Amino acid sequence: MGGKLIVFEGVEGCGKTSQIQLCSEWLESLGVSVVVTREPGGTELGLHLRRLLLEKAEDKPFGSAQGEPVAELTELLLYAADRSQHVEQELKPNLATGKHILCDRYTDSTIAYQGYGRGLNMNLINQLNNIATSGLESDLTIWLDVNVEVGLARKLLVQVGLDRIEQETIAFHRRVQQGYAHLAASHPSRIVRVDGSLSKEAVQQVIQEILRVHLHLGT
Amino acid sequence: MGGKLIVFEGVEGCGKTSQIQLCSEWLESLGVSVVVTREPGGTELGLHLRRLLLEKAEDKPFGSAQGEPVAELTELLLYAADRSQHVEQELKPNLATGKHILCDRYTDSTIAYQGYGRGLNMNLINQLNNIATSGLESDLTIWLDVNVEVGLARKLLVQVGLDRIEQETIAFHRRVQQGYAHLAASHPSRIVRVDGSLSKEAVQQVIQEILRVHLHLGT
Repeated sequence: MGGKLIVFEGVEGCGKTSQIQLCSEWLESLGVSVVVTREPGGTELGLHLRRLLLEKAEDKPFGSAQGEPVAELTELLLYAADRSQHVEQELKPNLATGKHILCDRYTDSTIAYQGYGRGLNMNLINQLNNIATSGLESDLTIWLDVNVEVGLARKLLVQVGLDRIEQETIAFHRRVQQGYAHLAASHPSRIVRVDGSLSKEAVQQVIQEILRVHLHLGT
Repeated sequence: MGGKLIVFEGVEGCGKTSQIQLCSEWLESLGVSVVVTREPGGTELGLHLRRLLLEKAEDKPFGSAQGEPVAELTELLLYAADRSQHVEQELKPNLATGKHILCDRYTDSTIAYQGYGRGLNMNLINQLNNIATSGLESDLTIWLDVNVEVGLARKLLVQVGLDRIEQETIAFHRRVQQGYAHLAASHPSRIVRVDGSLSKEAVQQVIQEILRVHLHLGT
């Protein structure tokens, strides 16, 4: 029996990273083998691409001084390249050996951020998502739903400065948030909304209940 | 009136780089403004991607030690990302201001190397070429046709070691060569074959005759 691909999604500061960490510890404590990974940057090649995609303007490794922004289409293609490498090298082999995967962002992030957020062509995004994943969908996507101002404030409490995506306008992040709401409404059996404004412990409890059912873990 | 996109194609060692250099000097001497560029690596972002794509195994910046090869699909997507950045930032703006462009490799390289050479899905390659170029085709492609052994021998005379693509088997390079032959036969008005086994001077003379006609330069 293959493993399951569990994806965590949401706006900046929604708590994905902490919740994934807590889930991983909990599952390991139950003797369930899991792999924790993320996009972009889940492979070594992906780490290079993540740097190109997310670096703050002031320490971009290429050409910001000469005013060379990454074209929107190029950004999409780089995310797709990161994803295809991740799928081939990390996701498929681990799922095949029966390991469950907890993945920080996947295809829905591209739809929410580049599609809803930046307004790029949605057909093109879906086309590239299909190419990059060879059709591999998440078995379950947990959407941590928080207010965008709350999320960004959380980020600023724990880190110095914001990366290129985090620096976008509030209006951009609201469009991303709306994107997640539309996605969750369109894929009710694949995407589960979790209220991310609760305490860290309360959110984790809700997620554990969902995973107990989804992974048939018993109580 | 917009500028023309003139692309040079061919197997390793076919003489593209020298011929482009000579063409550029000749056109400048006639007072014709040209831009010389290449793929991959025609932009600063592209230079980073070129390094990821072509570096020799021993000095790869990512993970060769841990045995992390670039997946074939990822390679295609990285070439597409390089191309889309190049088209948006370099080709379209220069053509719009009436400058002619001499470009070392373009979409036909992907068809020849990844399609014919590696046997990747040709529909997928065409789909990605269309996405990355937003439909911008070359006005004229000059295919420098040389025997693959001759080409590789020329490379070894002028450089130490071969890059990742150059290191492929002779059978691979023969398939690439066949790819160019098929492309030239399928697009007779866009692709012109030039015998690249002649002397550098003779090849340049043939190219100059072709460009005189194509760019309406008079004699």
